[in-house]
Amino acid sequence: MRAAVLRDKRMVYRDDVPDPVPGPGQVLVAVRACGICGSDLHFASHGADVLALGGQMAGGAGTGMDVDMGRDIFMGHEFSAEVLEAGPDTETQSPGTLVTSLPVLLSATGVEPIVYSNSTIGGYAERMLLAAPLLLPIPNGLDFKHAALTEPMAVGLHAVNKSNIQPGETALVLGCGPIGIAIIASLRARGVESVVAADFSSKRRELATTMGAHQVLDPALGSPFDTVKAAVVFEAVGVPGIIDDVLLRARPGTRLVVAGVCMQPDTVHPFFAIAKEINVQFVLAYNPEEFADSLRALAEGDIDVTPLITGEVGLDGVGAAFDDLADPERHCKILVTP
Amino acid sequence: MRAAVLRDKRMVYRDDVPDPVPGPGQVLVAVRACGICGSDLHFASHGADVLALGGQMAGGAGTGMDVDMGRDIFMGHEFSAEVLEAGPDTETQSPGTLVTSLPVLLSATGVEPIVYSNSTIGGYAERMLLAAPLLLPIPNGLDFKHAALTEPMAVGLHAVNKSNIQPGETALVLGCGPIGIAIIASLRARGVESVVAADFSSKRRELATTMGAHQVLDPALGSPFDTVKAAVVFEAVGVPGIIDDVLLRARPGTRLVVAGVCMQPDTVHPFFAIAKEINVQFVLAYNPEEFADSLRALAEGDIDVTPLITGEVGLDGVGAAFDDLADPERHCKILVTP
Repeated sequence: MRAAVLRDKRMVYRDDVPDPVPGPGQVLVAVRACGICGSDLHFASHGADVLALGGQMAGGAGTGMDVDMGRDIFMGHEFSAEVLEAGPDTETQSPGTLVTSLPVLLSATGVEPIVYSNSTIGGYAERMLLAAPLLLPIPNGLDFKHAALTEPMAVGLHAVNKSNIQPGETALVLGCGPIGIAIIASLRARGVESVVAADFSSKRRELATTMGAHQVLDPALGSPFDTVKAAVVFEAVGVPGIIDDVLLRARPGTRLVVAGVCMQPDTVHPFFAIAKEINVQFVLAYNPEEFADSLRALAEGDIDVTPLITGEVGLDGVGAAFDDLADPERHCKILVTP
Repeated sequence: MRAAVLRDKRMVYRDDVPDPVPGPGQVLVAVRACGICGSDLHFASHGADVLALGGQMAGGAGTGMDVDMGRDIFMGHEFSAEVLEAGPDTETQSPGTLVTSLPVLLSATGVEPIVYSNSTIGGYAERMLLAAPLLLPIPNGLDFKHAALTEPMAVGLHAVNKSNIQPGETALVLGCGPIGIAIIASLRARGVESVVAADFSSKRRELATTMGAHQVLDPALGSPFDTVKAAVVFEAVGVPGIIDDVLLRARPGTRLVVAGVCMQPDTVHPFFAIAKEINVQFVLAYNPEEFADSLRALAEGDIDVTPLITGEVGLDGVGAAFDDLADPERHCKILVTP
């Protein structure tokens, strides 16, 4: 079958990948749409560093990834799909049912994240395996392209949930890439009455407004902290220096939610945070309930992800799409539709 | 009158300081005891850096200190005292009453912290001014030497309150200087059933046990994180590198309370914290209610600070005491008794 795989830091099109065969409890599905995630771009360029950092953490907190960078790597964890065929002794939805799922495959040998793997196929492929107990049918006739964004929108929902923000509190979202946008959408869905978003890109500020920001700011014209008195700051940029800038400029008592994934070592001044008693909540991903809540929010129209989808490519276009996503003026989310 | 003042990075004895005169709402008191705080030692050596860092923070979050390092500086913020005389039109306790107070002086010109000042006299002096509305009589016949430790013990109480630790959760306290010890004592007073403390000094580990730690560890023999599964980690060391070490080694979901005051820039790996969704609560000082609660805990015998007091000097001994406190095997808290 066809797939796009990571090889030597580039996404390569293949038409000779063996079809996966569902085992007990597994379901073979046809991928209908798969979003390209910023973390995929990062992994493509810096995969070895990501794996090394994960390995550095002791105590079972590693990333659970055992990946050989010298071999082809399957990726794609933001997908919707159509049920084709269940494995032996496996009950599941009828063939043709549109579904999504947590990006996790259950097998006889354990739990494998569907994220970066030499063997577990992800959403950048014609077909893949999913775990029958984790399948969520796409409800309400929701467009399968929108359903593919359940995952990134769940990331935003989780960040907002962890922040414990109250409707009357002001939120400042730094960075309006897909995660920042997902946070903005969840803040609005939660009823937060003052959502301010900052991004250097005018296109992204426009998108932030469309997705629910009450006010947008261009950091090139001055620090957002000079304009906004925010109780909760969401950092969705993930580059070195931004955390310290927040610690320096934020108000006393600020709750900072770090949703951007900075992979490099970073320099901070603890004294800034101490003097202002700042709380820093680092967040990652979502829980299964939040994933289901995210799908429900899309299906019920609480969040409309139409404006996020700025491009669509086939499996042979994934490499070019990875390059295109570097330009924030052109793209937010590109969908791969195999 | 007599006082010890900071001059050119050294504590200098003076017997020619003019007696302060209480204004309206102020009370002249005779200092009975004043604890030497680690932050005083740090300020003596690195005062200019501390002031520069405070000045760097925008938005009114500065330290409120306008100090000329070229002139004598009064210090001493952990004190108990005896009421001598009220200012004009000021009601207060009878002369002879033993009191303590938040280290804050109210005056016609505003609020001045009693911490580092060219003009506002602190506890390293024969006499000082306090604000009548802030005076707390020392209850239950509590020893005034113990009452002087209300302030550092309130710092520990505040850190524990901010952690929101539950009795069934395990606490790991890194560093058993006065702040670490205050945290340990507050954890025990709160009913936390598993308090583990780590320090390189055997004397300080012994003190931690006396003050309530259920288990003590020597980090020279291996990381405390290899032994303890802690839900809440209290960092009471305050040197560069320790926050990142916690982020690397702590369990997923750990709440880290940073009570140590690291004044230098510090390098961290946000990815460690992100992958484990660590929450970092930076804390400083206490609120007025916690200060009063701390005095009550000492007066009612919930916390006995006797073992913390390892030395006592007069005003002419403050300089030598600052030097002696560098050795954790000899001292925890030295009281100045003018």
